[in-house]
Amino acid sequence: MEEEKISERVRVRRHPERGHYDRGVIDAILDEGLVCSVAFTRDGLPCVLPSNYVRIGDHLYLHGGPESTMFRTLAQGVPVCVCVTLVDGLVLSRSAANHSMNYRSVVVYGESEEVTDLQEKRATLTALVDQIVPGRSREVRPPEDRSLERTCVVRVPLRESSAKVHSGPPGDPQEDADVPVWAGVLPLALLGEEPVPDPDMPPIVPVPPTLRHYRRSAGRQG
Amino acid sequence: MEEEKISERVRVRRHPERGHYDRGVIDAILDEGLVCSVAFTRDGLPCVLPSNYVRIGDHLYLHGGPESTMFRTLAQGVPVCVCVTLVDGLVLSRSAANHSMNYRSVVVYGESEEVTDLQEKRATLTALVDQIVPGRSREVRPPEDRSLERTCVVRVPLRESSAKVHSGPPGDPQEDADVPVWAGVLPLALLGEEPVPDPDMPPIVPVPPTLRHYRRSAGRQG
Repeated sequence: MEEEKISERVRVRRHPERGHYDRGVIDAILDEGLVCSVAFTRDGLPCVLPSNYVRIGDHLYLHGGPESTMFRTLAQGVPVCVCVTLVDGLVLSRSAANHSMNYRSVVVYGESEEVTDLQEKRATLTALVDQIVPGRSREVRPPEDRSLERTCVVRVPLRESSAKVHSGPPGDPQEDADVPVWAGVLPLALLGEEPVPDPDMPPIVPVPPTLRHYRRSAGRQG
Repeated sequence: MEEEKISERVRVRRHPERGHYDRGVIDAILDEGLVCSVAFTRDGLPCVLPSNYVRIGDHLYLHGGPESTMFRTLAQGVPVCVCVTLVDGLVLSRSAANHSMNYRSVVVYGESEEVTDLQEKRATLTALVDQIVPGRSREVRPPEDRSLERTCVVRVPLRESSAKVHSGPPGDPQEDADVPVWAGVLPLALLGEEPVPDPDMPPIVPVPPTLRHYRRSAGRQG
């Protein structure tokens, strides 16, 4: 995105060198995350709740029960702000004050839009399943119309969004070089552990290979 | 907390059986998390940004650069909402619509309060370091007064907070029992990988044992 087209509210002001406005960077972070934090106002006060989400093209899609406060509010088309944060590592410095984290985050500002078209709602639920386990939507029972009608789906355009990325080793000043402590980065990754089969499932159904060595984090470090 | 003392805005209405108002449950989630999402309003519009945090007693503490928009705003004492979300596992059902996640989340509503007392600011930075690596604050250079003066610290009381916890296997209806697909839970955990030493560090400094097999998630599943 060209510099002059960046809206003021998405511009990264604190550590501007960490700001990214390129949809390639933004989309990669959104596609790796599992939950977002959705902020809206209620009676003029800020409110933030976690939600699943999936990106399809130029929108983030959220879904939930139409009776929930958040989805009742979002279905009306209101200003929202959504953030997704991936923690890539702990940056362990030689001084308490210089400790930090390596992370990648995205912030999206926009107006929520309720999705009422059943095809678009179906595509959302399908994409949600495939985002967590690629290809799984082909193996499970697809959503029925009555279930889609009961689900609230809203979308938020990615038009006003930015990413903030921090990576690399601690930046300790020269005066701290002699502090006798290990310094560096501890990379973190969100990893799948031993799958727990549904107790109601016949034991002959094998664990799909996609669930073995499941890794949610790119885990890039420096 | 007694039922009648729960404020309306923290009460879990959607899936009330998942709501917890006990500080033991709330504190355990807050103490396990690494980042929170801080929502506030700017020009009347919702805004949410990620931040590190630490809980000390009955408050959440946040710190950042006083020149950042968020901390300039929070230092004034404004209504905020903070959420922390831990993803414990993917709940893989037999139908697309029933997929969900096992999670533990906390939402805190309150007014931000700037902390100006240097001792309390020092305690915050120390606790932040020890929250990510227990005991590390004793090994690193402690914060100097001038660095504390340059850092903005705000706190949010935990008075109005609640937790929402979902765990367990998929709850597929009987009619889906015969869908021939693996169903169950894939537990997820935030795990440390191979530590990356600071390139400027003499190679004789050993990796501390606390960084081996670093595990951020309780990883409890069902």
